[in-house]
Amino acid sequence: MTNLPAIQDFYAENTAHCYGCGRLNERGLHIRSVWQGDELVCVFTPEAFHTALPEFVYGGLIASLIDCHSTGTAAAVAQREEGIPLGHAAPPRFVTAMLKVDYLKPTPLNTELTVRARATEIKPRKVIVESTLFANGVACARGNVVAVRVGENFGSV
Amino acid sequence: MTNLPAIQDFYAENTAHCYGCGRLNERGLHIRSVWQGDELVCVFTPEAFHTALPEFVYGGLIASLIDCHSTGTAAAVAQREEGIPLGHAAPPRFVTAMLKVDYLKPTPLNTELTVRARATEIKPRKVIVESTLFANGVACARGNVVAVRVGENFGSV
Repeated sequence: MTNLPAIQDFYAENTAHCYGCGRLNERGLHIRSVWQGDELVCVFTPEAFHTALPEFVYGGLIASLIDCHSTGTAAAVAQREEGIPLGHAAPPRFVTAMLKVDYLKPTPLNTELTVRARATEIKPRKVIVESTLFANGVACARGNVVAVRVGENFGSV
Repeated sequence: MTNLPAIQDFYAENTAHCYGCGRLNERGLHIRSVWQGDELVCVFTPEAFHTALPEFVYGGLIASLIDCHSTGTAAAVAQREEGIPLGHAAPPRFVTAMLKVDYLKPTPLNTELTVRARATEIKPRKVIVESTLFANGVACARGNVVAVRVGENFGSV
């Protein structure tokens, strides 16, 4: 999955410093969203210090994964809707207007996490993204994000 | 505010390693929640690398602040309900069942952030916490958290 191209690989340089998903942020998480059929998939292995209560993943990290993976999914879906293949142009950028996370069960640390996301509503200025985070095949959290497209000067479109 | 005692200062040692608010996590954010009247207040200054789009704070960090400050608020409120003054016993611990963040406007980087939280529903096993994040006096995000009390072995009570 890490060898496949991610939507974030093609964000314009001046929008590629996000702590969550910016490839140019040296201190960041480098969250990446990769197409897989009709879904976008994010694979991430937390560090030991990303702990909550002992042995479980910090909920704020889970929120961060869902946040950036959802805006990435919005960007990828919007670009596909416009008929532009991945990598042929800098994708549009979306920001989060609303983030909701339901923590279904504690997420174990020391294992790879997978977030699967898809758009459930696509409008020119707004994409709604639903996602599920899995650890060892078990759904541990569910995400719901309202992503809003920003203009090239980062104002809302 | 940083000199005043926070609820997290008194979390039992075996639950004080949270990446967001654990005082014993050397790599963590050290989020602190301080009583102020009927509210709990959290003051936090993001680092430059906590960026989203240029000049604005990363939404995942905002979610993290709201997450830990809300579970801290739940703990503080539950302890006060039990008539135990701050610091007289390790507070009960809460985890997040649901986190919702409404991003009202971009949150500027390079300034101190303040999150003000209060409990809107208090039950033995569940506390609902509402919060607002301010930058330079402007409300930039609103949080809604369902916090669930955990037992001493970290299972749900």
